[in-house]
Amino acid sequence: MILIGERINTGFKKIKAAVQNKDGDVIKEAARKQADAGADYIDVNLGAISNNPDDLCWMIEMVQEEVDLPISIDNNKIELLKVAIPICRKPPLVNSVIADNEKLDEILPVVAEYKASIIGLAMSAVGTPATADKRVENAGVIIAKVMEYDIPTDRLFLDPIVMPLKFMQDQAIETMKAGSQFGLFADPPCHVVCGLSNVSSGTIHKGLINRVYVAMLIANGLDAVILNVNDTELVDTILTAELILNKGIYADSYLEAFRR
Amino acid sequence: MILIGERINTGFKKIKAAVQNKDGDVIKEAARKQADAGADYIDVNLGAISNNPDDLCWMIEMVQEEVDLPISIDNNKIELLKVAIPICRKPPLVNSVIADNEKLDEILPVVAEYKASIIGLAMSAVGTPATADKRVENAGVIIAKVMEYDIPTDRLFLDPIVMPLKFMQDQAIETMKAGSQFGLFADPPCHVVCGLSNVSSGTIHKGLINRVYVAMLIANGLDAVILNVNDTELVDTILTAELILNKGIYADSYLEAFRR
Repeated sequence: MILIGERINTGFKKIKAAVQNKDGDVIKEAARKQADAGADYIDVNLGAISNNPDDLCWMIEMVQEEVDLPISIDNNKIELLKVAIPICRKPPLVNSVIADNEKLDEILPVVAEYKASIIGLAMSAVGTPATADKRVENAGVIIAKVMEYDIPTDRLFLDPIVMPLKFMQDQAIETMKAGSQFGLFADPPCHVVCGLSNVSSGTIHKGLINRVYVAMLIANGLDAVILNVNDTELVDTILTAELILNKGIYADSYLEAFRR
Repeated sequence: MILIGERINTGFKKIKAAVQNKDGDVIKEAARKQADAGADYIDVNLGAISNNPDDLCWMIEMVQEEVDLPISIDNNKIELLKVAIPICRKPPLVNSVIADNEKLDEILPVVAEYKASIIGLAMSAVGTPATADKRVENAGVIIAKVMEYDIPTDRLFLDPIVMPLKFMQDQAIETMKAGSQFGLFADPPCHVVCGLSNVSSGTIHKGLINRVYVAMLIANGLDAVILNVNDTELVDTILTAELILNKGIYADSYLEAFRR
């Protein structure tokens, strides 16, 4: 499982203040904490607080000074990406693009040039479709473009789009059904990723709902996830689901081994 | 989800002693505790401590004096079943039969006569097959016989057979794949059931492994489970997985509502 740590996001007050005050230690601490918990990518989200590429680049630099992990650049503005991607020491993950040929034609040349990976959301300019089939259609648009730009298909992370259970209860199955098909599309297969915590938005039993849903998604092909990697119970669930799928060899100490 | 409470089993010392000493209060307490926790069936397992139908009937009677739930008779000896099934106040669940035409021809007439349900294990006289496909073949043998005896197919609970993760790590996927097909066989569809705790046999993180696997199985068609229904975290997982599958309407208090 590819774990993408989501905590360096200006949606969190502490991170917002750190970016505004250029307090690098706060960013570094959040990066270190996620790396220690097993993150494979550190997501960096500038959010709406600035359109200045310098702010995004500063965040990326702070992470790179502290940890040796690739960055997930959580931004879809081409003018920011064009500045941020080149400063990444390791090929980053661009998070994200939608099934819109115009946007894809903007972003994919940069992705190709820097050997980056990219998250493709199975939605279009008109929004997220209500059915699995329409999500699959959107994913098809993205795959076609990725192939057109000669980007290896295993650098595409398809996202079937998780919706809040509390407000759109019928969507959890559609997301799961769509995701179960994304891995079958291409060779090498695309990754299947999601922003997990959306499922529990507004609920009381957030941790429980996240854990149960991630196990169900992993049973249906999910192999990457944007998550709070410091949620130990959630990561334990993911490690266990992978063992059940026979990825990695069972040992009584499998949880402890991951954390060493 | 149909919850089959597994605790009245002479494999537990307390239950074994209760049966030997005919201490009905112990059986009643275990039945009450499981009923209060939301069990739909109370499994009664005499085990190897006796072949006397009177002992099995006594256990069933104790449960029936205490709770108003149907019994799952955990026994495959035809001479015991012929005595025990008729004393059940509600149509019981016979747990279990295998894909063996001779055994099926013995048991199914009694099942049909008393409008009982039956668990069919996807194994044959030669054992549990290593692949999903072979489990499906075995299930097919059982369905054919159930139909021959005019038993409605929704009174058949097909069990894809859970194996210990620690010792047979490749089997968890095969079980899941087989189970995902069992619901598609007949109209009305057969139930898909499993004895869950086997997956975590011999492991340290039993509760975690049970919870993660049950969520993955539910995502793949499981709709009944033999379990420790007093394991609150496990039942919470099951309730959450069912909400995710849009069975029942989301409420913030969905866990509390189940327990009222």
